[in-house]
Amino acid sequence: MNGQDRYANRGRLLVKCPDGPGIVSALSKFLFEHGANIIESSQYTSDPAGGTFFIRLEFDCDDLAQKRSQMEADFVSLANDFDMEYRFAYGSERKKTAIFVSKEPHCLLELLWEWQSGDLQTDIAFVAGNHEEARGMVESLGIPFHYIPANKDIRQQVEEEQSRLIEQYDVDVIVLARYMQILTPEFVEKYPNKIINIHHSFLPAFIGARPYERAYNRGVKLIGATSHYVTNDLDEGPIIEQDIERVDHRDHVADLKKIGRSIERRVLARAVKWHLEDRVIVHGNKTIVFQ
Amino acid sequence: MNGQDRYANRGRLLVKCPDGPGIVSALSKFLFEHGANIIESSQYTSDPAGGTFFIRLEFDCDDLAQKRSQMEADFVSLANDFDMEYRFAYGSERKKTAIFVSKEPHCLLELLWEWQSGDLQTDIAFVAGNHEEARGMVESLGIPFHYIPANKDIRQQVEEEQSRLIEQYDVDVIVLARYMQILTPEFVEKYPNKIINIHHSFLPAFIGARPYERAYNRGVKLIGATSHYVTNDLDEGPIIEQDIERVDHRDHVADLKKIGRSIERRVLARAVKWHLEDRVIVHGNKTIVFQ
Amino acid sequence: MNGQDRYANRGRLLVKCPDGPGIVSALSKFLFEHGANIIESSQYTSDPAGGTFFIRLEFDCDDLAQKRSQMEADFVSLANDFDMEYRFAYGSERKKTAIFVSKEPHCLLELLWEWQSGDLQTDIAFVAGNHEEARGMVESLGIPFHYIPANKDIRQQVEEEQSRLIEQYDVDVIVLARYMQILTPEFVEKYPNKIINIHHSFLPAFIGARPYERAYNRGVKLIGATSHYVTNDLDEGPIIEQDIERVDHRDHVADLKKIGRSIERRVLARAVKWHLEDRVIVHGNKTIVFQ
Amino acid sequence: MNGQDRYANRGRLLVKCPDGPGIVSALSKFLFEHGANIIESSQYTSDPAGGTFFIRLEFDCDDLAQKRSQMEADFVSLANDFDMEYRFAYGSERKKTAIFVSKEPHCLLELLWEWQSGDLQTDIAFVAGNHEEARGMVESLGIPFHYIPANKDIRQQVEEEQSRLIEQYDVDVIVLARYMQILTPEFVEKYPNKIINIHHSFLPAFIGARPYERAYNRGVKLIGATSHYVTNDLDEGPIIEQDIERVDHRDHVADLKKIGRSIERRVLARAVKWHLEDRVIVHGNKTIVFQ
Repeated sequence: MNGQDRYANRGRLLVKCPDGPGIVSALSKFLFEHGANIIESSQYTSDPAGGTFFIRLEFDCDDLAQKRSQMEADFVSLANDFDMEYRFAYGSERKKTAIFVSKEPHCLLELLWEWQSGDLQTDIAFVAGNHEEARGMVESLGIPFHYIPANKDIRQQVEEEQSRLIEQYDVDVIVLARYMQILTPEFVEKYPNKIINIHHSFLPAFIGARPYERAYNRGVKLIGATSHYVTNDLDEGPIIEQDIERVDHRDHVADLKKIGRSIERRVLARAVKWHLEDRVIVHGNKTIVFQ
Repeated sequence: MNGQDRYANRGRLLVKCPDGPGIVSALSKFLFEHGANIIESSQYTSDPAGGTFFIRLEFDCDDLAQKRSQMEADFVSLANDFDMEYRFAYGSERKKTAIFVSKEPHCLLELLWEWQSGDLQTDIAFVAGNHEEARGMVESLGIPFHYIPANKDIRQQVEEEQSRLIEQYDVDVIVLARYMQILTPEFVEKYPNKIINIHHSFLPAFIGARPYERAYNRGVKLIGATSHYVTNDLDEGPIIEQDIERVDHRDHVADLKKIGRSIERRVLARAVKWHLEDRVIVHGNKTIVFQ
Repeated sequence: MNGQDRYANRGRLLVKCPDGPGIVSALSKFLFEHGANIIESSQYTSDPAGGTFFIRLEFDCDDLAQKRSQMEADFVSLANDFDMEYRFAYGSERKKTAIFVSKEPHCLLELLWEWQSGDLQTDIAFVAGNHEEARGMVESLGIPFHYIPANKDIRQQVEEEQSRLIEQYDVDVIVLARYMQILTPEFVEKYPNKIINIHHSFLPAFIGARPYERAYNRGVKLIGATSHYVTNDLDEGPIIEQDIERVDHRDHVADLKKIGRSIERRVLARAVKWHLEDRVIVHGNKTIVFQ
Repeated sequence: MNGQDRYANRGRLLVKCPDGPGIVSALSKFLFEHGANIIESSQYTSDPAGGTFFIRLEFDCDDLAQKRSQMEADFVSLANDFDMEYRFAYGSERKKTAIFVSKEPHCLLELLWEWQSGDLQTDIAFVAGNHEEARGMVESLGIPFHYIPANKDIRQQVEEEQSRLIEQYDVDVIVLARYMQILTPEFVEKYPNKIINIHHSFLPAFIGARPYERAYNRGVKLIGATSHYVTNDLDEGPIIEQDIERVDHRDHVADLKKIGRSIERRVLARAVKWHLEDRVIVHGNKTIVFQ
């Protein structure tokens, strides 16, 4: 049984609603009556008194492909009763991912590695680079590579080309794998909570450019990386994952960059994986991550 | 509102049964109909096909003290339907803990510290030591200290005294906080999954005596500690928690012991905390820890 | 042999000078000719070409108490040859430490614990608190406790009292163990690189007040603590040590504070320990830490 | 300046001798008089009283290629004076590495990645596999790949072929990157402290086969990997590096293997890197690692 078949009858239901009694009971009754077996359940209440309730249910259901439209239709009235925002997702429908990259390939390579091992539940629709370096590697895996030279003077034109590809390939998630170009507000607004970036510092320390140089100058004893959804406030979007490594006075900027690369690659890979498995819910400017 | 009041209406329901459809639905319906609001829910299935299902539900319920006997009575038929083993626990009924200690006080001190900060949901019934060192510290906190000299020749007599105290204080949990005496099989069998030990190695490495000396001789680059339930197989009981620290060639045995003390104290404190919050379920010789 | 005797013949030599050939050779020849055996040697060059050279030598020397003044006298000409700044320190002369504390005792307790275990090479001259909470604990260890109420209106008067005590006890190091008062520029300037603070964030993130609240609002996935020398730029002094712990969306501000306390206590304890062992050299606004 | 040029004038001197006064002085004087500038110095004494002294000196020296034979000749008498075992190594002479691999490529890939980034100071002479999987990847980097099918019945014949290649390519280090074959005592004895293995457990826990299965059955809360020199005691050779990751009850054997792969790859990469930089000294059955 390959990875995709394994998830053929797998569904996920994500719900957000005002907290109150009876929600879990109603949801689990609904799934039971539709023949679904709950595999994993994670819940969170922003505030025990009068807060917002979040739940992620992962379930298996025989013949899910046949049953799902009926299930979704039946769910409407339950959702209305509890004033739910909700979303169904299906293991049989893998998300389509586009990866944007510049010169440095380490984050791209880590994603391709995880994808090859079957650990990223996605189809990689294409890789777009404003440099050619990654073409060989990408194409050798049967993934289309699009070379789109970029600089700040032709930003709009570049993004038109990117948007065209995103539409053509029906992309669900855009991963900025050390893509060193600023995106326009218009582009960002088109893909809310769908663009995942890796920033090479432990945010909110060292927002903006040249974080390793500034970390070196400040004399910090740990350096980090942060993966977050892109918003139009620079490096201020909802944080999905962060990690750090220890450094010391002997580490010059080049050493920090090298150590940083290994942090960046694992932080971004985790964030993308969780997003693809519908484990990340954005709430205000923060994330709930149901691991 | 102090810590105890905060948990006055808090209940926990732990269930183990053959996996099958409808369990979560039935449980959440039951709690909803009894006016209980689920605060936290954690589940695990040992095997998706034909395995054992485990769930821990933490809930708030107004007037729980009044309602609980009715709730327990009503639960019997549901439990029968699903062939459940189960247990209710109540925040208003703090578990009673006895701590056994020898000369080295670091694990005892960590537990007392956590307890003073309100982070251990327990009453410390008494501390028993086969040395007098800890008496001052313990009694200054208003906790009874019992000095019970011990050696292998008077083991039975020592354990009779200990058992008498355990009965007198109605103790629920016995923590061996670096208590350097072997317990008899009879004593261990009286308290299954109720005696928590800290072993000063990363089990199953260095089972038995003098683990730091043996770690030094083997030249390991990490040392660890393991907290586990005591069974009559030496250092083979179900593991609750483990952790490690990095060491190097410069660390002699005395350094390993010092580094080890800080690992031991945090590993034991975590294990005891989780046990007290009914987060640990023993399954065969392994534990499920619902953090 | 107790801890102090163990260091009776132990000396340390710290040197800073322009890098160039022959420095290590000259220093090791000097020590050899004075009968000193090098136990530990750590060096660092800020820049292989034309940088500053730093070295810390720890040595044992029989009858050091008798020989040291001659050794120091002889060293002058070598130091002149290489344009060295340097400092000798002796294991027989334990540094005297004052600890300032407010209400929260966890950092103070950690330092007292380490000191009791013989792991801090210092005499604790006194503890000064602007609250009375810690008095009992401190005095039970035979350490003087001075209660000096403080607020911003009487800052000068408070600091006069503190300075008087520092002089009276001949204090070498002042540790701010979560002492929640701002120090005046005059006070700070009197004790350059001698005041060690613990800040409850991963600097430079969350400089200033209420870092845990701000960490919570930003939705970070890791929280940290930073120990640094105090300068007159708030939270901008040379960093000695930092560490972090993982948190998640379930952790409210109170949880972050609790987790943070365990980070703060170990970060401060490490920084103080290294300072007392003359392992920390300030260079510009950064530190070299010879572990 | 590329990586190799950067090390053109770089030398290393490793020394082991009975501890005593004057060693550092004599060594640093020697290097100074031969125009060498000490870049890094690390020392260790197995026992302050009557132990063995170890030092690793890294130095830069103009025109080292011209001077080195004279330097080595001059060193003989100093070495005799102190009864030294010693070894000079030169940055201009990169070690030659052979990598043995079976089916699983993750450790090989990590080494190739580090090598491509310039972080492994070595020439990869060849990769030998008892499966063909890695051929494409290896040859695309210009590295020879030798397919040598292996099983226990043809062990001797396989090792003859391997030895022939090792001799032909003048190999200095053999890395077993998850090479799942047992080596004969004869082969192991030919390459003492030159064969580096990665074992997929936290040794000495789970010596031998199927460590992840056994870790799963024991219910450990951390899994690890160990890189060590190969000796003829199975999994008992000197440990170079170890690391661990946290797991929990939800992780089945397949999950442990996946998590383990990421531990294995970084542990082996570190061990190989340190070996190549002459940072590892074997002493008895332990290692001194001068990081």
